[in-house]
Amino acid sequence: MKTDIEIAQEAAMLPIKDVAASIGVEEDDLELYGKYKAKFSDEYLKKVQSNPNGKLVLVTAINPTPAGEGKTTTTVGLGEAFGQLGKKAIIALREPSLGPCFGIKGGAAGGGYAQVVPMEDLNLHFTGDFHAITSANNLLAAMMDNHIQQGNALDIDTRQIIWKRCLDMNDRVLRNVVVGLGNKMDGVVREDHFVITVASEIMAILCLADDMEDLKHRLAKIIVAYNRAGEPVTAGDLNAVGAMAALLKDALKPNLIQTLEHTPAIVHGGPFANIAHGCNSVRATKLALKMADIVVTEAGFGADLGAEKFFDIKCRMAGLKPDAVVLVATVRALKYNGGVPKTETSVPNLEALKKGIVNLEKHIENLQKYGVPIVVTLNAFITDSEEEIHFVKNFCEERGCEFALSEVWEKGGKGGIALAEKVLDTLEHKESHFEVLYENSLSLKEKIETVAKEIYGAATVTYAPAAEKALKKITEMGFGDVPVCMAKNQYSLSDDPKLLGRPENFNVNIREVYVSAGAGFVVAITGAIMTMPGLPKKPAAEGIDVTTDGVITGLF
Amino acid sequence: MKTDIEIAQEAAMLPIKDVAASIGVEEDDLELYGKYKAKFSDEYLKKVQSNPNGKLVLVTAINPTPAGEGKTTTTVGLGEAFGQLGKKAIIALREPSLGPCFGIKGGAAGGGYAQVVPMEDLNLHFTGDFHAITSANNLLAAMMDNHIQQGNALDIDTRQIIWKRCLDMNDRVLRNVVVGLGNKMDGVVREDHFVITVASEIMAILCLADDMEDLKHRLAKIIVAYNRAGEPVTAGDLNAVGAMAALLKDALKPNLIQTLEHTPAIVHGGPFANIAHGCNSVRATKLALKMADIVVTEAGFGADLGAEKFFDIKCRMAGLKPDAVVLVATVRALKYNGGVPKTETSVPNLEALKKGIVNLEKHIENLQKYGVPIVVTLNAFITDSEEEIHFVKNFCEERGCEFALSEVWEKGGKGGIALAEKVLDTLEHKESHFEVLYENSLSLKEKIETVAKEIYGAATVTYAPAAEKALKKITEMGFGDVPVCMAKNQYSLSDDPKLLGRPENFNVNIREVYVSAGAGFVVAITGAIMTMPGLPKKPAAEGIDVTTDGVITGLF
Repeated sequence: MKTDIEIAQEAAMLPIKDVAASIGVEEDDLELYGKYKAKFSDEYLKKVQSNPNGKLVLVTAINPTPAGEGKTTTTVGLGEAFGQLGKKAIIALREPSLGPCFGIKGGAAGGGYAQVVPMEDLNLHFTGDFHAITSANNLLAAMMDNHIQQGNALDIDTRQIIWKRCLDMNDRVLRNVVVGLGNKMDGVVREDHFVITVASEIMAILCLADDMEDLKHRLAKIIVAYNRAGEPVTAGDLNAVGAMAALLKDALKPNLIQTLEHTPAIVHGGPFANIAHGCNSVRATKLALKMADIVVTEAGFGADLGAEKFFDIKCRMAGLKPDAVVLVATVRALKYNGGVPKTETSVPNLEALKKGIVNLEKHIENLQKYGVPIVVTLNAFITDSEEEIHFVKNFCEERGCEFALSEVWEKGGKGGIALAEKVLDTLEHKESHFEVLYENSLSLKEKIETVAKEIYGAATVTYAPAAEKALKKITEMGFGDVPVCMAKNQYSLSDDPKLLGRPENFNVNIREVYVSAGAGFVVAITGAIMTMPGLPKKPAAEGIDVTTDGVITGLF
Repeated sequence: MKTDIEIAQEAAMLPIKDVAASIGVEEDDLELYGKYKAKFSDEYLKKVQSNPNGKLVLVTAINPTPAGEGKTTTTVGLGEAFGQLGKKAIIALREPSLGPCFGIKGGAAGGGYAQVVPMEDLNLHFTGDFHAITSANNLLAAMMDNHIQQGNALDIDTRQIIWKRCLDMNDRVLRNVVVGLGNKMDGVVREDHFVITVASEIMAILCLADDMEDLKHRLAKIIVAYNRAGEPVTAGDLNAVGAMAALLKDALKPNLIQTLEHTPAIVHGGPFANIAHGCNSVRATKLALKMADIVVTEAGFGADLGAEKFFDIKCRMAGLKPDAVVLVATVRALKYNGGVPKTETSVPNLEALKKGIVNLEKHIENLQKYGVPIVVTLNAFITDSEEEIHFVKNFCEERGCEFALSEVWEKGGKGGIALAEKVLDTLEHKESHFEVLYENSLSLKEKIETVAKEIYGAATVTYAPAAEKALKKITEMGFGDVPVCMAKNQYSLSDDPKLLGRPENFNVNIREVYVSAGAGFVVAITGAIMTMPGLPKKPAAEGIDVTTDGVITGLF
């Protein structure tokens, strides 16, 4: 069996200018990054503004398990299948973070014969967008600490600093640090924290900004700290906005790559869905809608995280109206949710499937609250039994969902034709009545509790004292009327990663709350979720290598 | 008067593939990064291996002053002037660091009508090389701390950790930090330090590596810490080499841009010359020598730093033989060295010039020790008097140096023809008898003292207790026979930045010594020099902006 990277490296890629030409984009509209990657020029984005919009299809999934689900694989394969059917389709994905590549998760380019390529470039530095975000984030931090060092004219209270440094790395020792040690010339001593770049507010801002003007407007509003009178101090106050925007100038441009079957894939922005809002950029999605009849996009992790924030944050802010949702599951993952250990998920086990399918059930119920037609798909494994597949199919159809088996991992676009046909049928015959889950006019607590109870299924919500205090302060500051961005572990619908299936009668504890004024949401952190991951006992990095001829191995 | 960035932005750049074509490089040999930047493919580097080598000209300078010298400007202008004379010349420069861009120094693309373009791209993220170095550096740090957290099988002594994290940012509060605070899952608490990326050993390794194999070989040798038995623990021991090399795969490829007059400029690598070895990459210089009849390269800061390390580290390791040296000075800077404040350096003042020219004198004497023919050039300012210029010319000629006035800032290549002719004449008629200053077989202390006394002019050298101890240990470990990489402030020949001109009877104090086993040298830190700069009271970042149309302003 070939590995993903072997399949990717054997692929005969088309020059990216040829992929672009296949959808009417001229070479002059591109800024090439090597032969197989490009950014769209600002001029091109303007040029297509008056085109009609295509249909928007979101791909989401049940809660992830070690057994694997294949959300990105399905997204890629579905896009390719539309191509097989002669439809003009574009895929809109997130860029992967370096952290998980070297940790445990591996890359994020899809898998098998449903991948975007060049996968090594995508998984490593790609076009440098994340590095630009890291730089802008850390420039702001350096300017803030320098301001304090040089006299602190804004009277920043070093005990009330919100802004954190960041790195695109899984590096647990940076979660809690003390900076500024040494002597007088080495700065003012204070506690500090690093987050992974994908959790930085700048990542969210880049993904939500309409254009350079909006980007700068949002950057200016970032609250970095409070002064000793308790008033917010912003990036604008620190005169950092122009330089940060200069660093982000190219990162703001969406990137183009291709699938193994040469379907265009716009890959741009990449906040994690557990600790951030989990969607690719608004600019990329809107651009794709202007370029194609069907846009297939994905949101991170399970539908409780990625899809909820896709709807309640991204679609709300950007005025997007999704036309259909594809919900990805696997028989193996459902059995895992039913209590079977990973090693036994290949053994047919209808009882475990029946027990674990409650996870899928809850996600179907949740998605139905948004009024968007649902197609459930099983990402097929060779070990799935006919009986198991049939059971899932019936289960979905009884709940008003379409169902299709997907074999894109093994067969590429051809393996996704059944799914693509169901989606097409849905787009033609089922109307989307999309609405957000909650109104912005609710209080922050009401919004948090709406998500926790209606989506997660919590019975109660509690707040740590610091979170209570922050909610009060944020509301008084006038940020009560923005959406909430929930940070929660991805493995469980609850805030306890060990509770699989469909947990009930649980409490969600809100540990920490802060406002991302530039992004335009309030972050609520549940349970023990971390904004800086760590590396596992044997990091994936130890297996990565590059040959004398520059061929990368061991990346997955 | 137009600013540098205005001149650069008004320039009609050629597509970089056309610049490449002008020197016989096909588009297929390039990996484009937008329309105006490219990397050379590995295949191209192999293809030109059998070509004969061109002549190698180093541009260096007197000690930098606030009055400005224009070393990069002269390098660029000289390359353009060779073009004006119909010679096949290539410029080989370093990539700038983001830190100084946002601090006080500004960019590093030359100035006036002798610049390389696109200057904004070059000064910001360029092709991402520095970000790749930062990532590789910090991956190694994360893997080391993770190793300690996960059981510390290598028995790393957390009190003897050498490896530092890095950021390409001027950020003084990161000089001395404590990491790993929090609880059991947040790592082991220890003291840590960040350096600026240009001071990272990985930067030095990238700049000294012959190819991917050599890069990996060097990476494996990096000493990250000592174990409790006092033995070195390396990046190889941590199984970090393959992943680091994968991150550096593209960064290892030299970059091509152009001057305002379309002269090809290979810009690759960028260690600072005060805290690192200060030269562009060996791969870039060697490539340029295979492609052109004359290669003009520069080394950082004054000849006491950049040129010394260019000769004693880079040329020694890479087997390069420089054919001529251009030593850049300005009348204003020489008067500043003579005690005149910056504001008065435009006023003719022969007495101050006579007093300050001792700085130039010492650099001439130093360069003569390497046996390479010298051409001194004055980077002309409108305020220089005839008498002053004449005095400098005579001074140089009396010491066996050629002399030429350079007006490249104002006139581009045409302003450098007089200089180019002198250099051509030197290349044709004066033989280079290049030899390094010291033999590797000397002891580390003898090597440090040779540089301090013969180049800086020190009377004595002292060692802090920690430095004494480190020298003993490093020698015992078998690293006594490598060159020394001196870290010293750039403003003075001494280790006290306030002593201008030609200080005498001073002591140099060695504060800290460590081995960069992968780079292949021992670093000796003098005086109060810092490997992580800080931002000034009003950082240049505050003046940088980008328009709605994506045009960057305020970068200089």
